[in-house]
Amino acid sequence: MEKLNLGVIGTGRIGKVHIATLVQSVPKANVVAIADTDQASARKVAQAFGIKSVFDNYMDIINHPEVEAVVICSPTDTHAKYTVDAAKAGKHIFCEKPVDLSLDVIKGAIDATKKAGVKFMVGFNRRFDPNFLKVKQMVSDGKRGQPHILKITSRDPNPPSAEYAAVSGGMFMDMTIHDFDMARYICGSEVTEVFTCASVMVDPAIGKAGDVDTAVITLMFANGATGVIDNSRKAVYGYDQRLEIFGSKGMVNADNNFPENHRYFASDGIHSSLPLNFFMDRYLESYANEMKIFCEAVINNAPIPVSGEDGLMSVAIAMAAKKSHLEHRPVKLSEII
Amino acid sequence: MEKLNLGVIGTGRIGKVHIATLVQSVPKANVVAIADTDQASARKVAQAFGIKSVFDNYMDIINHPEVEAVVICSPTDTHAKYTVDAAKAGKHIFCEKPVDLSLDVIKGAIDATKKAGVKFMVGFNRRFDPNFLKVKQMVSDGKRGQPHILKITSRDPNPPSAEYAAVSGGMFMDMTIHDFDMARYICGSEVTEVFTCASVMVDPAIGKAGDVDTAVITLMFANGATGVIDNSRKAVYGYDQRLEIFGSKGMVNADNNFPENHRYFASDGIHSSLPLNFFMDRYLESYANEMKIFCEAVINNAPIPVSGEDGLMSVAIAMAAKKSHLEHRPVKLSEII
Amino acid sequence: MEKLNLGVIGTGRIGKVHIATLVQSVPKANVVAIADTDQASARKVAQAFGIKSVFDNYMDIINHPEVEAVVICSPTDTHAKYTVDAAKAGKHIFCEKPVDLSLDVIKGAIDATKKAGVKFMVGFNRRFDPNFLKVKQMVSDGKRGQPHILKITSRDPNPPSAEYAAVSGGMFMDMTIHDFDMARYICGSEVTEVFTCASVMVDPAIGKAGDVDTAVITLMFANGATGVIDNSRKAVYGYDQRLEIFGSKGMVNADNNFPENHRYFASDGIHSSLPLNFFMDRYLESYANEMKIFCEAVINNAPIPVSGEDGLMSVAIAMAAKKSHLEHRPVKLSEII
Amino acid sequence: MEKLNLGVIGTGRIGKVHIATLVQSVPKANVVAIADTDQASARKVAQAFGIKSVFDNYMDIINHPEVEAVVICSPTDTHAKYTVDAAKAGKHIFCEKPVDLSLDVIKGAIDATKKAGVKFMVGFNRRFDPNFLKVKQMVSDGKRGQPHILKITSRDPNPPSAEYAAVSGGMFMDMTIHDFDMARYICGSEVTEVFTCASVMVDPAIGKAGDVDTAVITLMFANGATGVIDNSRKAVYGYDQRLEIFGSKGMVNADNNFPENHRYFASDGIHSSLPLNFFMDRYLESYANEMKIFCEAVINNAPIPVSGEDGLMSVAIAMAAKKSHLEHRPVKLSEII
Repeated sequence: MEKLNLGVIGTGRIGKVHIATLVQSVPKANVVAIADTDQASARKVAQAFGIKSVFDNYMDIINHPEVEAVVICSPTDTHAKYTVDAAKAGKHIFCEKPVDLSLDVIKGAIDATKKAGVKFMVGFNRRFDPNFLKVKQMVSDGKRGQPHILKITSRDPNPPSAEYAAVSGGMFMDMTIHDFDMARYICGSEVTEVFTCASVMVDPAIGKAGDVDTAVITLMFANGATGVIDNSRKAVYGYDQRLEIFGSKGMVNADNNFPENHRYFASDGIHSSLPLNFFMDRYLESYANEMKIFCEAVINNAPIPVSGEDGLMSVAIAMAAKKSHLEHRPVKLSEII
Repeated sequence: MEKLNLGVIGTGRIGKVHIATLVQSVPKANVVAIADTDQASARKVAQAFGIKSVFDNYMDIINHPEVEAVVICSPTDTHAKYTVDAAKAGKHIFCEKPVDLSLDVIKGAIDATKKAGVKFMVGFNRRFDPNFLKVKQMVSDGKRGQPHILKITSRDPNPPSAEYAAVSGGMFMDMTIHDFDMARYICGSEVTEVFTCASVMVDPAIGKAGDVDTAVITLMFANGATGVIDNSRKAVYGYDQRLEIFGSKGMVNADNNFPENHRYFASDGIHSSLPLNFFMDRYLESYANEMKIFCEAVINNAPIPVSGEDGLMSVAIAMAAKKSHLEHRPVKLSEII
Repeated sequence: MEKLNLGVIGTGRIGKVHIATLVQSVPKANVVAIADTDQASARKVAQAFGIKSVFDNYMDIINHPEVEAVVICSPTDTHAKYTVDAAKAGKHIFCEKPVDLSLDVIKGAIDATKKAGVKFMVGFNRRFDPNFLKVKQMVSDGKRGQPHILKITSRDPNPPSAEYAAVSGGMFMDMTIHDFDMARYICGSEVTEVFTCASVMVDPAIGKAGDVDTAVITLMFANGATGVIDNSRKAVYGYDQRLEIFGSKGMVNADNNFPENHRYFASDGIHSSLPLNFFMDRYLESYANEMKIFCEAVINNAPIPVSGEDGLMSVAIAMAAKKSHLEHRPVKLSEII
Repeated sequence: MEKLNLGVIGTGRIGKVHIATLVQSVPKANVVAIADTDQASARKVAQAFGIKSVFDNYMDIINHPEVEAVVICSPTDTHAKYTVDAAKAGKHIFCEKPVDLSLDVIKGAIDATKKAGVKFMVGFNRRFDPNFLKVKQMVSDGKRGQPHILKITSRDPNPPSAEYAAVSGGMFMDMTIHDFDMARYICGSEVTEVFTCASVMVDPAIGKAGDVDTAVITLMFANGATGVIDNSRKAVYGYDQRLEIFGSKGMVNADNNFPENHRYFASDGIHSSLPLNFFMDRYLESYANEMKIFCEAVINNAPIPVSGEDGLMSVAIAMAAKKSHLEHRPVKLSEII
């Protein structure tokens, strides 16, 4: 079996997720080196997963002769730079979302990968969740008819710290960006306009930091469909990730996943367990599928399912959503991009 | 619209159910008279439902010139006698289950109705429950294949008093008899043998009265299928009435009904309401459907869906179940009937 | 039992619904007279339900000495006039929604009922649906915390004719008005602003008639909550009526109702029946509960649960929704009322 | 992290399952050697999972100086012999079920492990399925009250070949044995008596080979509870593995698992996907949990959750079930063991 040699840049939370997935669940992946400026973290991860080479400089990954593809899991403000450097070195790239908070910078990164002729995939892992994959497939085959209404519910179990909220680019760029990508993906059409109704209902400190924690966002699509995303930073019952698409020939929906499916019939009602509470549990399979597909696309020179343009569009929609919130009016994507 | 003039004998619990149903939900029914030896009860019911004539002697119903059909809701030990008297008077008959606790007496009642050429329907109302009707229809159309395994769960919310248990003919004759009829109905085949595993788990007083309150009963059918009924006199979560039939081409099941369908996602789990707790709520529609079908069958001279023979067979199976319990061995129906 | 003598004006679709409900399911109701300019229709209904008096002039109902309360089911443009006339005659009033398409006219009708000291209830029957009642109760008791996000899905099985769409006041006034009332009811707060994203996805003829058939409507509430209603005039899988309310202490939702609950496990998937398809089936209990509550409120001189002001607010929100659609911007209720 | 060095004997279907699980999902496991008389199979597996040593003689595993524990996945008739040999060599043992088809031979194997003071675990993996684990925990904490009725549904998607059926020890020993173990585990009590109603409904060739393919088996427990297992060798809708326990304080059940949870509302009904169809998919987590618990128990010298006695009892119940089927009467366990 042909394997792909990968180097991973960044061993923080999402870096560890990708390394564990590549080592344990992607038979065609071979992680040859990892890098992190935090050497203690990098060494610990290397030991846990049996990875030979550990560096502190990301360029040692990019220039590593064995590395064929890099997985960029470093902080957001380094994504584009590392992408450009890796492209110049002729390495294929998997980059975490968002690629950058500036559209021009993202465009520059996309251009670099195109010039270099390397593959460039952006980390919208939820596209590879079995529930959403099934819905996508059922929409794509046309038997569900023309999409009319798309509804996405995306609620976190707990809000981030106000400090994090302040530096994350805000809820739309940090959290809703996944839903914007999902909306485009499921609907199969571009968002043309956004109206945001957002508020601070969960934690006043988030408001003080200039962000919001609750939102209902209306999306207008080029194909005539209308979408609505509802977000909250705090659902006391756990991580809530559902969607529903309604079209001319029927409706398809996807529910949350659960740790087990017992039902208890007691004298005071029927009770069951809450949804999987942590994104790694909920999206365990989506992370594995994502990396399998990336590795196979590189090995077989096949098309990449989440392009740089997909990364660009989600950031643009997040910008439109924020502008709509601030100006309290519907904002056209053409005002942004 | 042609209407059927009915007289009801007995205004106890089930009598009231039928009178209310006939008056409120069966447009083709016209209840002209009711009778009960308890005149106070009868008068109260008559007033509540606007019924003109009240008698204490059941023969006044049977001989009433306007009465075309009688509904027998009096105590079990009078069912067969009243059936025979009504048949002799040329009146159509709806009789509550069981027709009698003696097979010979039941056979005599059946013979009387046949000789008189009157219609005779036995009150197995659950056949007309929308859930079970749908399962029956799906089994009957043959698309589910040959039945292999039938499972019926039937649990009461609360046990009867030990006094009632003692005079009711026992759990098999009083409660499981509905499940025996359902088993024959859904499976579309006769029971040939029964094995009962019964116990007293709920109330020792029921055991002292010579009855059981918990049972798992295996049924062997002429068509090769196997059935199993599980009963309890006390399910703390309410009235539990479900079934499942598994065949060569698939499985169909029916669940309980609920007063409303809210789901509450709280920090400690997901919660919903218990099933409808009272037989009248659970089988509201089945009682109405049952009486509609009886009235229409009489008016249109159409076949009766639950015959005297159906009433006979359920009693015979209940006898086999009890014999199996007492002798702790499988009992063939041919030993009974 | 004390009964309330009612007269019903209008024997069209909704008139028949109320007459049937009052006669069959509301023991405290006594329908003494009905009126319709279509005498053939009125006589047919009277005969079917055993009603003594039939008139063609609605004033014969209002002036009828036995009539204590009138139920107004005539065309929308007569609602307010009949309400005022009935109030002047000292009769209690149940009026179908919408009271009128003009806010001033509605206010005039409300004033007339207040001056006359008669009870005035508007026909938002869905408030009395057992599912929504349960959700409302669970929100009202405060244990679910502060409402953050309210979602209402309301989709019809089939679009009206374009002719009907043209004269109905449009989808917002004719169909969504129920959802506007439900939103205020469940959220327990007034709508302050509306943003509508509406389109013609189902039937171009509806568009030609100046109306829409698909909409996603964002509602902003005085208590800080955000709501979203999604509507379609055509759901091929039937009548879709669900809601979900998410708050600081949990989420409660309500699903559709079904004719029966079988599940069929076949070799190609698991299959079950569609929701109840007709508003009368889905809201059977809500119509009965509504009329019971109206009759009891009049008999016991108790508060009316759906006031003229409730009728007024729903029309105002519908106007704001339409204005938002036409001007493609969020519209404050203060611009309307 | 301390690791356990394991050797695996047998690289057939279940051997591959355990090797993959140990390598990929049990961080504390270190598979140092595998053996199979089929050398081609063994080498292929070794290469796929990066295992250093491959033998054809099982004694090379047992005598391997690095091997601390052996996993016995060879044919049933070798289980007991290999267990005894491994015990004599002082190695801890995980043995697939059934330990043997003779109670005396199983007792001998248990004795050998006890004399040698080694740990001995039998492969009833389903005890470690998250759904069943949750039910077990809810029963064990006592809040569900005293168990009254236990129901286990266990149906395979496809029957084995008649040849396999002939040599497998029969359906009770090969398939139902898992359900017998589950029944003892969930009920927390010993089976005292069995009544079997079995038939050939799926494949006449299975009947010719002397086996059955459909069964309903009643179990009587020492604690007074009654259990019922229903089995089929062919459920066209896939692998059906459910259970329900009903007790004095409520009922708990566990359902199947599904590949994804979409629901499609079409004009002809609501449709969803079938359960996971293959035992490896359905019990993926149970296999991993099982091996984790075995390795940790050995490393930490902790109690083994599935003992040799558990293995013995399941075989004894299978024998009673077969005897009951052949003699068509309830059979006491005391007749067997």
